[in-house]
Amino acid sequence: MKILLRIAYKGTNYCGWQAQNNGKSIQEVMTDAATKVFGIACDLTGCSRTDSGVHANDFCATVTEHGKSYLNTTIPENKIPVAYNCFLPDDISVLKAIWVDDGFHPRYDVLKKEYKYIIYTACERDPFLSDRAWHIPKKLDAVKMNEAARRFIGKNDFSSFMASGSKIVDTVRTVYSAEVTQDNGKIVFTVSADGFLYNMVRIMVGTLVDVGEGKKSPDCINSIIGNKDRSKSGVTAPPYGLYLNRVEYKSK
Amino acid sequence: MKILLRIAYKGTNYCGWQAQNNGKSIQEVMTDAATKVFGIACDLTGCSRTDSGVHANDFCATVTEHGKSYLNTTIPENKIPVAYNCFLPDDISVLKAIWVDDGFHPRYDVLKKEYKYIIYTACERDPFLSDRAWHIPKKLDAVKMNEAARRFIGKNDFSSFMASGSKIVDTVRTVYSAEVTQDNGKIVFTVSADGFLYNMVRIMVGTLVDVGEGKKSPDCINSIIGNKDRSKSGVTAPPYGLYLNRVEYKSK
Repeated sequence: MKILLRIAYKGTNYCGWQAQNNGKSIQEVMTDAATKVFGIACDLTGCSRTDSGVHANDFCATVTEHGKSYLNTTIPENKIPVAYNCFLPDDISVLKAIWVDDGFHPRYDVLKKEYKYIIYTACERDPFLSDRAWHIPKKLDAVKMNEAARRFIGKNDFSSFMASGSKIVDTVRTVYSAEVTQDNGKIVFTVSADGFLYNMVRIMVGTLVDVGEGKKSPDCINSIIGNKDRSKSGVTAPPYGLYLNRVEYKSK
Repeated sequence: MKILLRIAYKGTNYCGWQAQNNGKSIQEVMTDAATKVFGIACDLTGCSRTDSGVHANDFCATVTEHGKSYLNTTIPENKIPVAYNCFLPDDISVLKAIWVDDGFHPRYDVLKKEYKYIIYTACERDPFLSDRAWHIPKKLDAVKMNEAARRFIGKNDFSSFMASGSKIVDTVRTVYSAEVTQDNGKIVFTVSADGFLYNMVRIMVGTLVDVGEGKKSPDCINSIIGNKDRSKSGVTAPPYGLYLNRVEYKSK
């Protein structure tokens, strides 16, 4: 058995989940804390990479003993979050811990992932949103953006919504839901799929903003998908508006 | 004529509004920016002091030429916010600027101030709320807290809700409204008055939390007010949950 953690973090001060050479990663901080909580060297495996500055309301990762496929601990699973949080900085929090089988893989066993992207359109910037939403001080047509968003739904080749230079061969993904809502001056794009290509949500958002500004029509989404050409879609929206919002597993 | 600014700021990285020796103040940053915007040395006068770590959704301050009671500028008032924000860090934002008379005083002409205080009661801490709400991982009875809050309303001597050691002589204030609401896991206390004593809102919150935990009954508020004794009220809630939310002027 191994432990599956559900984690929330504010990504502002990290280079993303994955340990890298260009800054502190969530994975490193979580691994160091695991050693303190469980008293042995541990490996952390995440459900996905997230980019520098991207946030998570629900990131999933497993904890195993270093080099093994299991973890031994006498700490009851309902005590693990509070124990773990004693060793974590304020911008990372373990929300839940549950036991899963040795064979469970936090990336390969994902059934569905949901992302949220937050935009706000106030004239002046909001000091409480500066590192957690994209400020576009213009009127955006959220109804048209929602019409456009719905066209992402289905099984499609999303090459046009993948960062150029990616080496992924299979660019087909199934989008289960996609909608744009307005809430108290914020425009929120929520999208779920069986998986996402590199920068896919951020390029979707850049394209939806073009629709919101009237530069593209909602039905352009179908032709952009059909073109399989990154140059037809919009800019890559900045990372700090993006949240990994929910991860669903086959049997969890 | 002078300029009245409406400002929002996240207080986390500041020692409060007032220029002090123990850290960077909002007033200093705003004064430096004024020199750049208006091209002359300026004085900034605020509507109140705020403590280190306290936030503002609507803080008011006037800008005058250094040592004078007026400001001369050719910048149209509707362009001042965007000009000002070019010279401010992400955690401070000018929302609005309007002309007011030379005789206007941003502190003495206040008719009503409203504060909000945010508490959240989730079992585990929320990385997105760590420096902007008080985390109390317990069940709090918000209905009883609201019953207690309503007892603050009226013209009262609020000595019991003033930091001990304060030198204020007139401790009578009129509370116009006071309520506790629940919203998506958050408990929010909103209170408006003609003025507030030092730490008054934070001591009110500490006392309301005692009520929410069942340590005090809602009707204890009347006797605590009557006692005029700081030792009868609750702890001073931490600054980072507090927001100056709205300032109303006699003729604005």
